[in-house]
Amino acid sequence: MDTKTAIIERRSVKHYDPNHSMSETEIRELLELALLSPTSFNMQNWRFVVVTDPAKREALKAAAWNQAQVTDASITILLCARMDAHADGERYWVNAPQPAQDVLVPMLKGYYEGKANLQHDEAMRSIGIASQTLMLAAKSMGYDSCPMVGFDFEKAAEIIQLPENHVIGMMLTVGKALKPAAPRGGQLPYEEVVKMESF
Amino acid sequence: MDTKTAIIERRSVKHYDPNHSMSETEIRELLELALLSPTSFNMQNWRFVVVTDPAKREALKAAAWNQAQVTDASITILLCARMDAHADGERYWVNAPQPAQDVLVPMLKGYYEGKANLQHDEAMRSIGIASQTLMLAAKSMGYDSCPMVGFDFEKAAEIIQLPENHVIGMMLTVGKALKPAAPRGGQLPYEEVVKMESF
Repeated sequence: MDTKTAIIERRSVKHYDPNHSMSETEIRELLELALLSPTSFNMQNWRFVVVTDPAKREALKAAAWNQAQVTDASITILLCARMDAHADGERYWVNAPQPAQDVLVPMLKGYYEGKANLQHDEAMRSIGIASQTLMLAAKSMGYDSCPMVGFDFEKAAEIIQLPENHVIGMMLTVGKALKPAAPRGGQLPYEEVVKMESF
Repeated sequence: MDTKTAIIERRSVKHYDPNHSMSETEIRELLELALLSPTSFNMQNWRFVVVTDPAKREALKAAAWNQAQVTDASITILLCARMDAHADGERYWVNAPQPAQDVLVPMLKGYYEGKANLQHDEAMRSIGIASQTLMLAAKSMGYDSCPMVGFDFEKAAEIIQLPENHVIGMMLTVGKALKPAAPRGGQLPYEEVVKMESF
């Protein structure tokens, strides 16, 4: 599917075929595309938990105001991040020439070390970027998706056994649409949202 | 360009043709695609400042450790967000049936009102999502991009006259590549980043 078509046709779909399953190959293809999303200093701070187990998804649904898409879609992904990913800076530049490594690795560590708010912002940014990769890749594979923040983050963390020093940023369902999304609710005028040169 | 190709071939490009300009039509096409990115409760909390003015871009470059792409690319976009976008909840659902509006608008306001950290997280998530729309749309239009957080956010805020109650989340350059990106620096193994069912 053409990129512009995927961007235009991607909508947040709530109604999925509960009998449809994604194959392991499809799930891996989708997630491998997500892993090509950019991250600051290539630190790949995101972690993706793909939930297919019916009992776990029932528990996630209960933690998400019982929204049906959590169990009706084919998979439910928890987009998480490791807050101290910067500490492993060497690993993200191992293939770069040594002089580049010598600059980038200390720069990455220095930029994030000890700055909890910045680490948290980076988690949310990286998760946001990767979520759109997943949504557009899903669309191009014939699937639809629904990004969600309306759930109990602490309960979800228990269900997926989120390790210390990690955060959850979003839940995303992916599956076969039974019913298209309702028309867009009310788009703001271009000129209100896009400014030329300055506010 | 095919969606998967755009995802695979999108890289953070640093070297741009400084003589290339994007037309107003191209800039508008790119930003109109960004405006189709999903936001929580459709609140469209992002604001995009497209900087083409050479003096403003020199100032932004100075605020960004003199990274050449800020002036060499064709445009530099500041991805910002309005923190209290939820307060205008009615506008984002004006086209929905009244019973849906009656549920969604109070839910949106209640979810964000008075929760500064959550508003800030939503700003970063929305900006992350929209940035990937921009990067993939740019790729499909024959352009390359570079997402950046390595700059002085306060100086950038002065340059673009960021209003109160708004934040900057990212700088993004878009232009015609002169030199491709270096090979990926060091990708983490799939199994380390993608977990099935739980951590």
